[in-house]
Amino acid sequence: MRRHFIAGIVDYGYNCLQMGKEEQSMGIVIKNVVVDEEGSVKSVNLRIEDGVISAVTEEAIQELPGDTVIDGKGKFALPGFVNAHTHIPMSLFRGLADDISLDTWLHDHIWPAEKRLTDDDVYWGSLLSLAEMLRSGTTQIADMYFHTDSIARAVSEAGMRGTLSYGIVAHRLDQHGKDEISKAREVVKDYHGSSHGRIRTAISPHAIYTCGRDVWRAATALAREEHVPLHIHLCETRAEVEWSMKNWGHSPVTALDDLGVFSVPTIAAHCVHVNEEEIRLLAQRSVTAVHCPKSNAKLGNGHAPVVSLLSAGVNVALGTDGAASNNSQDMLEEMRMASLLQKAALEDPTALPARQVARMATENGADALGMGARRIAVGEDADIVLVRLDGVDTVPAYEPFSALVYAAHARNVTDVLVAGEFLLRDGELLTIDEERVKYEVVNRFGSIAPN
Amino acid sequence: MRRHFIAGIVDYGYNCLQMGKEEQSMGIVIKNVVVDEEGSVKSVNLRIEDGVISAVTEEAIQELPGDTVIDGKGKFALPGFVNAHTHIPMSLFRGLADDISLDTWLHDHIWPAEKRLTDDDVYWGSLLSLAEMLRSGTTQIADMYFHTDSIARAVSEAGMRGTLSYGIVAHRLDQHGKDEISKAREVVKDYHGSSHGRIRTAISPHAIYTCGRDVWRAATALAREEHVPLHIHLCETRAEVEWSMKNWGHSPVTALDDLGVFSVPTIAAHCVHVNEEEIRLLAQRSVTAVHCPKSNAKLGNGHAPVVSLLSAGVNVALGTDGAASNNSQDMLEEMRMASLLQKAALEDPTALPARQVARMATENGADALGMGARRIAVGEDADIVLVRLDGVDTVPAYEPFSALVYAAHARNVTDVLVAGEFLLRDGELLTIDEERVKYEVVNRFGSIAPN
Repeated sequence: MRRHFIAGIVDYGYNCLQMGKEEQSMGIVIKNVVVDEEGSVKSVNLRIEDGVISAVTEEAIQELPGDTVIDGKGKFALPGFVNAHTHIPMSLFRGLADDISLDTWLHDHIWPAEKRLTDDDVYWGSLLSLAEMLRSGTTQIADMYFHTDSIARAVSEAGMRGTLSYGIVAHRLDQHGKDEISKAREVVKDYHGSSHGRIRTAISPHAIYTCGRDVWRAATALAREEHVPLHIHLCETRAEVEWSMKNWGHSPVTALDDLGVFSVPTIAAHCVHVNEEEIRLLAQRSVTAVHCPKSNAKLGNGHAPVVSLLSAGVNVALGTDGAASNNSQDMLEEMRMASLLQKAALEDPTALPARQVARMATENGADALGMGARRIAVGEDADIVLVRLDGVDTVPAYEPFSALVYAAHARNVTDVLVAGEFLLRDGELLTIDEERVKYEVVNRFGSIAPN
Repeated sequence: MRRHFIAGIVDYGYNCLQMGKEEQSMGIVIKNVVVDEEGSVKSVNLRIEDGVISAVTEEAIQELPGDTVIDGKGKFALPGFVNAHTHIPMSLFRGLADDISLDTWLHDHIWPAEKRLTDDDVYWGSLLSLAEMLRSGTTQIADMYFHTDSIARAVSEAGMRGTLSYGIVAHRLDQHGKDEISKAREVVKDYHGSSHGRIRTAISPHAIYTCGRDVWRAATALAREEHVPLHIHLCETRAEVEWSMKNWGHSPVTALDDLGVFSVPTIAAHCVHVNEEEIRLLAQRSVTAVHCPKSNAKLGNGHAPVVSLLSAGVNVALGTDGAASNNSQDMLEEMRMASLLQKAALEDPTALPARQVARMATENGADALGMGARRIAVGEDADIVLVRLDGVDTVPAYEPFSALVYAAHARNVTDVLVAGEFLLRDGELLTIDEERVKYEVVNRFGSIAPN
């Protein structure tokens, strides 16, 4: 993929003419950046063309006219983080009701607040989360909510990748249930493949306790018909498992498997309360478990058996869940929390090492969602995050994954690209007007910190 | 405490003359800042004079010539964070050896690396931690290490408050043991009350497994004689408790109490593996427990029973421990981790709420160390941190403690004062040359992120 260019004024003109259309591709060169190549850490030069990584080399890369050239010195380049389970408009409820029981939180605070949301509220709330996400290196999300038109508009404008879905809540396949299924179908029809292919869709029967059997069957059939995955909540709380045992006669995993749900590729958020047998079943069915450690901790739901899930061969991705229960949308924090919570719960300092948790936050998420960069390598999508490792919070950086997972913060993230397009450049958001977003959110929802 | 000043050119000159020495005190006014007054959140104006808070009022404060006036709009003012257990030079070993067992970590990595440290290494490593601390709102530390001259020099130059101690390691009160006690005494003689009273000292027999009975007795006697507290490690690991049962015939808490150790005010780091009876004893003896949740998690030591300690009336402060096992020196992260780890371990979302954990990080630490601000109130030392709550990571900020503990990051910290002196001003470190510090550390210890 290397192209040769003879420097000099006369040659420059000649080459520009010769290069024609190719010249307009406007490559990006990132010099002297630290990458991990199959377990080996090295300093390389990267070239990006047409949204794809075209060179990863320890040799010099010839710069071409029109190239954007970045000095990557002191920075770690890795695939953008994949936040595989979130509800982006819920940043509007960040800190609305902390330190209370899950029941009170849902019934007295979150659900009433959600009923009052307008399309515009959801649009601005979505942009608020996306701004926080870009600043902390996320390039791709899997979102489940409602007002999906507003969410799709925000994700498209931000330039990020998103697998979007409408959260189906219906106990019976009556008119309401059919309407819910229709809304889910409309999201697929309207948005699958939109935003230059950066937006895809999924079908989201919300959870076992909010959807009846016929609704699960209809949702599963719809996902199969549309060739999109299911994105569901699964075994988040002890109460959910108890409810399922009582009302379905089985644990959620067994009950849904009996219905054939897992015959469709499934992205299952949480998987906290699953036993060894259920873990084996999830592995057999190739279900992706999305670990959300901060939300699970903050809502008092406990520790997911991440080490057991990984050992059994389950694809475990990482997600923040909504900012109402997190209260961030920051995958650097999520990686750190994932590793530390496992080490604490298992009393084992070797549990979930930095490199493994970074893979959960990148490759495993991209695998589950079927798009975006899986690693920094030729032919991969140029979804790239650059993280400074030369801050007072990270030096001396002996090993990049340790520095990333245990020490780095969003402020160390300097650049974010999706499909070779800069969305964050040298600390500046290029696709989101951050001040406007904050103004709109505070104006609508109030804050002790007014603009 | 309000002073009246009639504006105007003639009056200005007149007042300058009249004010004489008082004029040189150069007050600081912080306008429209959010504070918590005994559970009530309000926007106030603050005045600081001679290192002390002289006004906290919802009324306007008259600005005087020479005053530094700060707009606090959108910011939360609270007492500076107290990092009540750390080893600041250990930032040099940040990420040196992660994800391995405690034994291998200590014996094969940390202890050999510590043997090679020079005074200058410790000085630069200390400044590295202090820079990270100031950027995340810490104004006061309790440090235990060796090369204390270098640490004292760094803390003094940074302008922070510090209770410094030499870590005594000696199994017998032989010549080595006596030398260790002498070194501990020298720290008290050389530094107690230095740096305009911002530096105090403590006596630090390291732990039950590293100091013999006679050494504990001598250290306790020295602390009593010098009227300084003990700062020790206590019940950090299961192995320590087992070792103590085997070698001393009692748990560490009982064994040290039998020796009379807790008759001197004691700051005990960790207290992870303590039972109900030991917790009651710690409360009776007024021992301060310093909770270090990130270090305990990362080293696989488990969850300290913080809720039980607080319920029993133990003063629980918060600390980061050294950056080799954290890997940060950031009290915002530590507060968040403290609350989330307790909620996860107890499966209780109401455990350790935001306001309580903030108190642990401020008032409880200041109580233990006997200096610095305990709250934002008239007469308190002006150790103040200002935290922006209007970032994309914190809006909408419905409640300041929720925003602080669950959402804010070091990048939201704009200003830090100690005794009315700005150490961080509008994001700029005033007492530490950050670039020089990073250069010296990377130059000495290497990094994949060179300067």
